[in-house]
Amino acid sequence: MLSDHLQNGIETAKLVWSRLPTAEDDAGPAAAEEEEDVFARRSNGGSGMESLDYEIIENYAYREHQAQRGKLWVSYYVVVKWLFALLIGIGTGYAAVFINLAVENFSGWKYAATFSIIQHSYFAGFLVYILINLGLVFSSVFIITHFAPAAAGSGIPEIKGYLNGVDTHGILLFRTLVGKIFGSIGSVGGGLALGKEGPLVHTGACIASLLGQGGSTKYHLRSRWLRIFESDRDRRDLVTCGCAAGVAAAFRAPVGGVLFALEEVTSWWRSQLMWRVFFTSAVVAVVVRSAMSWCKSGKCGHFGSGGFIIWDISGGQEDYSFQELLPMAIIGVIGGLLGALFNQLTLYITKWRRSYLHKKGSRVKILEVCLISVLTSIISFGSPLLTKCSPCPDSDAIECPRPPGTDGNFVNFYCAKDKEYNDLATIFFNTQDDAIRNLFSAKTFHEYSAQSLLTFLVMFYSLAIVTFGTAVPAGQFVPGIMIGSTYGRLVGMFVVKFYKRLNVEEGTYALLGAASFLGGSMRMTVSLCVIMVEITNNLQLLPLIMLVLLVSKAVGDFFNEGLYEMQAQLRGIPLLESRPKQYMRNMTAKEACKTQKVVCFSRIVKVADIVSVLRSNKHNGFPVVDHRPNGETLVIGLILRSHLLVLLQSKVDFQNSPFPCDLRGVSNRHNFSDFVKPASSKGKSIEEIHLAQDELELYLDLAPFLNPSPYIVPEDMSLAKVYNLFRQLGLRHIFVVPRPSRVIGLITRKDLLVEESDDSATLELQSTSVRAQRPRERLVMQHVQQPEHPLLSSLLIQQ
Amino acid sequence: MLSDHLQNGIETAKLVWSRLPTAEDDAGPAAAEEEEDVFARRSNGGSGMESLDYEIIENYAYREHQAQRGKLWVSYYVVVKWLFALLIGIGTGYAAVFINLAVENFSGWKYAATFSIIQHSYFAGFLVYILINLGLVFSSVFIITHFAPAAAGSGIPEIKGYLNGVDTHGILLFRTLVGKIFGSIGSVGGGLALGKEGPLVHTGACIASLLGQGGSTKYHLRSRWLRIFESDRDRRDLVTCGCAAGVAAAFRAPVGGVLFALEEVTSWWRSQLMWRVFFTSAVVAVVVRSAMSWCKSGKCGHFGSGGFIIWDISGGQEDYSFQELLPMAIIGVIGGLLGALFNQLTLYITKWRRSYLHKKGSRVKILEVCLISVLTSIISFGSPLLTKCSPCPDSDAIECPRPPGTDGNFVNFYCAKDKEYNDLATIFFNTQDDAIRNLFSAKTFHEYSAQSLLTFLVMFYSLAIVTFGTAVPAGQFVPGIMIGSTYGRLVGMFVVKFYKRLNVEEGTYALLGAASFLGGSMRMTVSLCVIMVEITNNLQLLPLIMLVLLVSKAVGDFFNEGLYEMQAQLRGIPLLESRPKQYMRNMTAKEACKTQKVVCFSRIVKVADIVSVLRSNKHNGFPVVDHRPNGETLVIGLILRSHLLVLLQSKVDFQNSPFPCDLRGVSNRHNFSDFVKPASSKGKSIEEIHLAQDELELYLDLAPFLNPSPYIVPEDMSLAKVYNLFRQLGLRHIFVVPRPSRVIGLITRKDLLVEESDDSATLELQSTSVRAQRPRERLVMQHVQQPEHPLLSSLLIQQ
Repeated sequence: MLSDHLQNGIETAKLVWSRLPTAEDDAGPAAAEEEEDVFARRSNGGSGMESLDYEIIENYAYREHQAQRGKLWVSYYVVVKWLFALLIGIGTGYAAVFINLAVENFSGWKYAATFSIIQHSYFAGFLVYILINLGLVFSSVFIITHFAPAAAGSGIPEIKGYLNGVDTHGILLFRTLVGKIFGSIGSVGGGLALGKEGPLVHTGACIASLLGQGGSTKYHLRSRWLRIFESDRDRRDLVTCGCAAGVAAAFRAPVGGVLFALEEVTSWWRSQLMWRVFFTSAVVAVVVRSAMSWCKSGKCGHFGSGGFIIWDISGGQEDYSFQELLPMAIIGVIGGLLGALFNQLTLYITKWRRSYLHKKGSRVKILEVCLISVLTSIISFGSPLLTKCSPCPDSDAIECPRPPGTDGNFVNFYCAKDKEYNDLATIFFNTQDDAIRNLFSAKTFHEYSAQSLLTFLVMFYSLAIVTFGTAVPAGQFVPGIMIGSTYGRLVGMFVVKFYKRLNVEEGTYALLGAASFLGGSMRMTVSLCVIMVEITNNLQLLPLIMLVLLVSKAVGDFFNEGLYEMQAQLRGIPLLESRPKQYMRNMTAKEACKTQKVVCFSRIVKVADIVSVLRSNKHNGFPVVDHRPNGETLVIGLILRSHLLVLLQSKVDFQNSPFPCDLRGVSNRHNFSDFVKPASSKGKSIEEIHLAQDELELYLDLAPFLNPSPYIVPEDMSLAKVYNLFRQLGLRHIFVVPRPSRVIGLITRKDLLVEESDDSATLELQSTSVRAQRPRERLVMQHVQQPEHPLLSSLLIQQ
Repeated sequence: MLSDHLQNGIETAKLVWSRLPTAEDDAGPAAAEEEEDVFARRSNGGSGMESLDYEIIENYAYREHQAQRGKLWVSYYVVVKWLFALLIGIGTGYAAVFINLAVENFSGWKYAATFSIIQHSYFAGFLVYILINLGLVFSSVFIITHFAPAAAGSGIPEIKGYLNGVDTHGILLFRTLVGKIFGSIGSVGGGLALGKEGPLVHTGACIASLLGQGGSTKYHLRSRWLRIFESDRDRRDLVTCGCAAGVAAAFRAPVGGVLFALEEVTSWWRSQLMWRVFFTSAVVAVVVRSAMSWCKSGKCGHFGSGGFIIWDISGGQEDYSFQELLPMAIIGVIGGLLGALFNQLTLYITKWRRSYLHKKGSRVKILEVCLISVLTSIISFGSPLLTKCSPCPDSDAIECPRPPGTDGNFVNFYCAKDKEYNDLATIFFNTQDDAIRNLFSAKTFHEYSAQSLLTFLVMFYSLAIVTFGTAVPAGQFVPGIMIGSTYGRLVGMFVVKFYKRLNVEEGTYALLGAASFLGGSMRMTVSLCVIMVEITNNLQLLPLIMLVLLVSKAVGDFFNEGLYEMQAQLRGIPLLESRPKQYMRNMTAKEACKTQKVVCFSRIVKVADIVSVLRSNKHNGFPVVDHRPNGETLVIGLILRSHLLVLLQSKVDFQNSPFPCDLRGVSNRHNFSDFVKPASSKGKSIEEIHLAQDELELYLDLAPFLNPSPYIVPEDMSLAKVYNLFRQLGLRHIFVVPRPSRVIGLITRKDLLVEESDDSATLELQSTSVRAQRPRERLVMQHVQQPEHPLLSSLLIQQ
């Protein structure tokens, strides 16, 4: 076979050069620019956004690399996978505890200081309040603009993009993680109209990703022992775990976290992953719970009673009558309308900001945030001042006004008498968590006047819109809950008034309002529903929350898309939706790639030619075509730009002869992890690689490094079907080929159900079960270790 | 173009006959038998089990059929889709209420009668008890054996198979539905060691499927207006909703239902479906809730306090300490061991039953179930008789013994004194729901002696194994909970004894035990966890349940597969797992279909040839190959056996000339719903079709009916990749073709993200949003209505 091989090699080599891609074969600058436009809109060096792969790695080098690993490695892999799930849970849990602890302490101290000063002078208190807020917010925006620009915003659209297959540069760096944590503390502690929950999702994802690559490269914190996740797929699984952990930590909602990851962020879900994600969430729940019970003893300063939004309304309304469904549906409609309006307005403002304001540099960004902070302080301090205080209710069960320095309802603020409270201050001059707890609270009828609620709604809605999109870490969950619960409570007040005989709680309506606004804005359904149930710890309300969400999502969908989708679009993250567009049904695959010319490589290429092709375009993958002795051509695979760059840089595979290389030594020459781009780096660029003149004259055999069987579709398959294939399998490249001339075989269900024979290896790396460790099954890798590799040998025989 | 067309047609026709499949092309009887073996193991006429398709329907006839429908039809389609979700919810909810009502009344009446008789004579009571049980069980087994054989068992493996793509005959018939409901009532009311929850899942699926085909065909209950779900995909979506509704109704766990459908039954999940499934579950929750509140007034006989397993343990243990994790892990291990043992033993017994017992006909089946019923009655009545009564606890808060005719703990049964209770009777001589409630109950320390619990565990475990697989509807949830909570409570007793200072509740351990056994047997994870939380209405225990499930699933996986997978395997339902087997990585697509010869059709075929091909093999799909004038062949698509049978039966497409037909009239000749096999029918067979001699001499043009672009893979793609493609897209056939000679284009992410132009139709039938109804978007179907269809015209041009 080897002599055949050699002879064919000579034949092949003769034909190789005649077919080397010329300038004409190239896609040309126009096509390259188009790609640049879509993918690298925000890039610095041309690789700011990158597409990711979810395929099984199949090239020869990787397979041989795998084969050299033994049984021990597999067990190690499984153990590390679960260990990482554990570590992600612990890490995210502690990050959440740290953020909450810091925020609660900063704002607790802030309010304590302000309250003690306003006993003497409201003006001095006002100034102190503004300055503290400004200081906190400034620290946040300074960190973001000067240290971690990718940490601005909630990060959820970017993570969604990452899991959909688009890598935005910088979102998973170590500095982004640090910036996110400290930025969140500053912006939330500084009283801006934003939340810390979205950023926690990003934090979880960062922790997961950094673990997955074994630490931070830049800060030399990498461990070789943990660098075993080499495929994009493993990395993305970890990031999915991290997202779920983030939600679980933010809302103390483990089930909600799993569903959020499933419904909202991931694009390719494998049921094996679910259990691992669930495990991570459970770990988070345990970590947060134990930290909180430790804090209950008062060791955590102001933290303890507050922090960690969990608004237990199990003491509230237990039952509901069918007459209440109408006002609930009205809440849903309001939520849909206000949510859609919120999305639209934030879209306009973000667009304006991007095109005018943020182009002017960091100083403008800092100034903007500081102005908003001052405005927020003025409104939250000033508007309660203008409100008349109400007399306390007569009931003895209620502590009114609340004692200074505690959390709770009935805040005495600028009131003439002792037995009065300021209802606007109760929700406005307070941390958001406490405000929501007050709005949700049961057994507090008529605590708020309609006027105060309306004032708050308008003010806070405007503030939330203005704050959204500034250069600080910002979540939309808590502001959404604030807005929603305000009008929910308003509707609740009317219900209490008109349905007098019923057991109605205003707090329940506030909860439904919160659900409706989130539904109308974020358009999440199942996960949101479960999160609402988990944070209120009340399963009884599930059908009601569902009803409200159904209505608000339907109303919102009538106007525009969800918040995250719109923001992703705005940031140029090209998300593939789960369904093909209708027009794709009437378009063929060939039409879809009509304008493109295909740049092919031959199996054995001159190094100089590779360099010139890579320089002349920005394509990420190239078909490799081989030539049979009889002049026929044959597509033998796909080679990735990134792999070519690694080969050019390492130079070890260069050879003098234009003949096929000896495949067996390939994997010894390479450490496979060289081929893996760290998630937090930009990747290599052809400009960074310098080759000597004599190196350019050498040859490179691509066979061991190409993906020998990329997915193919016939040219006249409808684009809708191609889309499904692409989307469902998470591909990066599909070859469009001519209609085949014959069918070699048909694969049906029965061909895939061949009973496993005893001697075949049952190694399943992705397994969630521990069966792979069963002693009586031999974890032999003989099949893989055979030097005659079926895939490649068939490729060679065909020559 | 038309004249070209005609000329090419003549050329084509000349070549057609030379390539007609001969006996040599055929797969031959051996291959046909092999297929028979795998797919039709249980079949009567050769089509008992069928593979289903999840692809986009793309053939010309269907597309033209769709195009003839207007805008109104689309709105109607969306409305009906949601209406069906509502109806499935209502139907399943009421079915569940009916079953629970009947079971509770039957058994309430049974226990009342027995208790009143044993005041006089234990022997008479014993006889009456046995006879009532026997009567109920007999009615159940009689219904199943004589009326609805497909209703035996839980039905979950079959439904799982259906949603994985394998249609077992009879599982979704109207008679199966009726048999399931009444059979469940008999078998559960008759006190057998089985549950009514699994059958409810099947019931929900049946209701959904019958709605989807517009009623029952056999009983002439079909409505034309509701028959709009023509694709397998729509049908399966409905069945998924039905499954979720079943779980939601059985456990009153709407979120658990959604997750069960997601994790356990479906194979192809689309996130758009999730919201509809959730809606269905919510409807069920509302229906069940309102029915139960109506029953609370005492209008439902014995139903009211009992029924509907929901074991509220919110009064139980609120907290847990880290020292308790060890006994909890032990519970997990026990659950894994006992669950795996349960699976293995039921597998052996079911195998034995199938090969010896059930071959002997219905009488043996009836006799078997009756014997088991008598045995169960004797054990459940007799073993408490042999137990010594315990004195009632001193506490005044506990009612001991419970007053006759009520539910609750502390049953006085065969006790010498008044102030005594029989602990074994409390769990054994009771409905299972009440027994579980008693086992879960808090604040009842030392109610059960270890001896009684052990006796019960052994007895019930054996009964559950023996009962499993008999010819009655049988769920494994409740028996599993019974078994698990018994050993859980046992462990709890030890914990109470050894960790004296802690606030430990035996009931909590019983709950964890239940979770562990279900985890060890069914290997469900997330959904089971959520179901357990929802039925106990206690979110605090979530991390503990998770821990226990992690351990028990891991231990169970060490030994064997999950209960449903093993049962599906036994019944010959070929489920495709979500991951390819390891050996597939080392096998190419070509090797996988090596033994098969491909039977091809030409585009225009003689009717006689179709008949002979269909008679000579059992293949479900055939490639269609066309011949170019220059002698080259070209694969133009795939034609399904079922479509060929419809064409042969209708005869309207037969033509005299061997030239391509006029495509425009095709859809007028057919009502597309003819092509759709009703889910509850066996489908046509070639033997049923009779053609006259002159008809056999006519020709048929297959072009309008074939799927013009089935998915193709190159011959040396690894089988693992092919498997992924097949599994992820839910395919039935994949063509294995030679390696392509050139690449026409590459499709990447950017090609699929073309901005939608304004004039393209945005009709999205599968949408969960109402955006399609937005007035300013024109729902034009012009693209589809164009007579020159891009797909087919390209096909014609190529000739």
